[in-house]
Amino acid sequence: MIVTVTLNPALDITYTVPRLNPGTTHRPQVAAQAGGKGVNVTRTLHALGRETVAVLPLGGFDGEAVRTELETACVPHHVIPIGGATRRTVTVVQTQSPDGLATGFNESGPELAVGEWAEICAAVGALLEMATQDASSVLVLSGKLPRGLADTAYADLITVADGFGVPTILDTEGPALLAGLSARPAIVKPNAHELLDATGLPDPAQAAAELLKRGARAVVASNGPDGLTAHTADATWTARPPRIDGGNPTGAGDAAVAALAIGLADGTPWPDALADAAALSAATVLTDRAGVFDAEAYRRFKSELTPYSHPSPSRGTTPPSR
Amino acid sequence: MIVTVTLNPALDITYTVPRLNPGTTHRPQVAAQAGGKGVNVTRTLHALGRETVAVLPLGGFDGEAVRTELETACVPHHVIPIGGATRRTVTVVQTQSPDGLATGFNESGPELAVGEWAEICAAVGALLEMATQDASSVLVLSGKLPRGLADTAYADLITVADGFGVPTILDTEGPALLAGLSARPAIVKPNAHELLDATGLPDPAQAAAELLKRGARAVVASNGPDGLTAHTADATWTARPPRIDGGNPTGAGDAAVAALAIGLADGTPWPDALADAAALSAATVLTDRAGVFDAEAYRRFKSELTPYSHPSPSRGTTPPSR
Repeated sequence: MIVTVTLNPALDITYTVPRLNPGTTHRPQVAAQAGGKGVNVTRTLHALGRETVAVLPLGGFDGEAVRTELETACVPHHVIPIGGATRRTVTVVQTQSPDGLATGFNESGPELAVGEWAEICAAVGALLEMATQDASSVLVLSGKLPRGLADTAYADLITVADGFGVPTILDTEGPALLAGLSARPAIVKPNAHELLDATGLPDPAQAAAELLKRGARAVVASNGPDGLTAHTADATWTARPPRIDGGNPTGAGDAAVAALAIGLADGTPWPDALADAAALSAATVLTDRAGVFDAEAYRRFKSELTPYSHPSPSRGTTPPSR
Repeated sequence: MIVTVTLNPALDITYTVPRLNPGTTHRPQVAAQAGGKGVNVTRTLHALGRETVAVLPLGGFDGEAVRTELETACVPHHVIPIGGATRRTVTVVQTQSPDGLATGFNESGPELAVGEWAEICAAVGALLEMATQDASSVLVLSGKLPRGLADTAYADLITVADGFGVPTILDTEGPALLAGLSARPAIVKPNAHELLDATGLPDPAQAAAELLKRGARAVVASNGPDGLTAHTADATWTARPPRIDGGNPTGAGDAAVAALAIGLADGTPWPDALADAAALSAATVLTDRAGVFDAEAYRRFKSELTPYSHPSPSRGTTPPSR
């Protein structure tokens, strides 16, 4: 069982318009989907037939809309009701724009009360307890921490999982990422920007080495169309997917995390797990929706993709290939 | 009692950002309010201490959010629950833009089922029956018709109100406006664009004369900062408010309708009722929110504003002053 935790979920709204013309009124096509990085991971895992559940706090009318969409789409979920109101995100997509860039509006999420955090921890504990019969359990912690929680909140959940013998993938940024390292997560997955930003170091390999030093057992850095680079104490690999023109990168990082969670659950060797993650991530870029991938492209990319090993792993003197 | 009907209400969301930069992600300040033109009219009337109720169909999670906001803000309302989901509108306001123009995204509303339309008619009938003790009742019909209704829907409600001896203000556009005229509404209030668009005539005075000929007892055309022009069978007046720099014109037309409804209820002579409408409309432009006006400015504008009569009323040979 792969348990994902999304502490700051959202109702993701997509407005499709021919063109975004600031200062005018548009009549958009509207699509709505439960969102948040962990929810995307669970949606992907469920589509791949893996046992998974998304743990998430929900409140307010948009929280009810999120819960209803998860039920309608049969995405396994465990909701902790909260007093605050779940946020929305609005993404405006243009069908006739030359650059094809999306415009986003990300609302802030609600503050979590102390008692609500305790309920989330209890729910994760109960799910991990149930999952101990399953030797291949993994905990996935995704996204920013909501207001009201200490930076160490993810570290606490990693420690809880460790007590159940369950490894954790941590996909967050900034102080929450740094604070999580001390609890020794199996994998952290920052993107290139988050990697440099968290460490303040100018070089990705140096920054990854720093995260390893601080406690991560592996660092997988995502770099958009340039693919994924995995850094462990022993080696460094890069998996670069085929070039994709256009597409929607939303949720691509979450697809990579889903594949890495499967790799961790199944004990897949690094190069193969990394190739799988790069292939699933690229196949997600080919669809309009986060958490949804092009199954045929996924199979094809997976068969074509061969990661390469870097000559001086984890010493940080050679930057990963660009 | 002034009964307003909003067949296509919305949860109006305002996103405030420093600047709208297409192709990037924003973290907006968020405000939400029950919206729709008739709801704005009732909100304004209630703030003025007039007895009023907003009749509106609501469904889905956003419908619940609309209902909750109306309850919280103490706006009198009568909800007809429907199967479809109430829509949202999103308006993006820029605080640091030189032009200050807002960017809008107006979702389509749900289709009304036949039975739901019957329930709305029954609710309006019951409210008008209750209001017959009150000699100064008015019915206000505002906004576009939802999908699923015939263009004659407003005409039907005007006829119902007529049976109770209650005059109607119709504020809509296109075929619904034209079809409503045959039921002889007391006032129709198109804006300058809607006036020309509905009639296909190039001149506002000619177009107003055409609407009078087709059954309207009076036509009040709003023309943004240039104010309001009232056309009746006997005369034409224009009330022009002081020039306002900036401000938010959303809901300005609804404020004019609120004042016209009060004028109709109280039997106020045309020039005074028109001055009141222009003053309340301008005082609404001074606030950020539809249905909310600057009370001090309203008093000041009202005392300063004197409508002028046009030399050749309703013959349509002289266009209203620009």
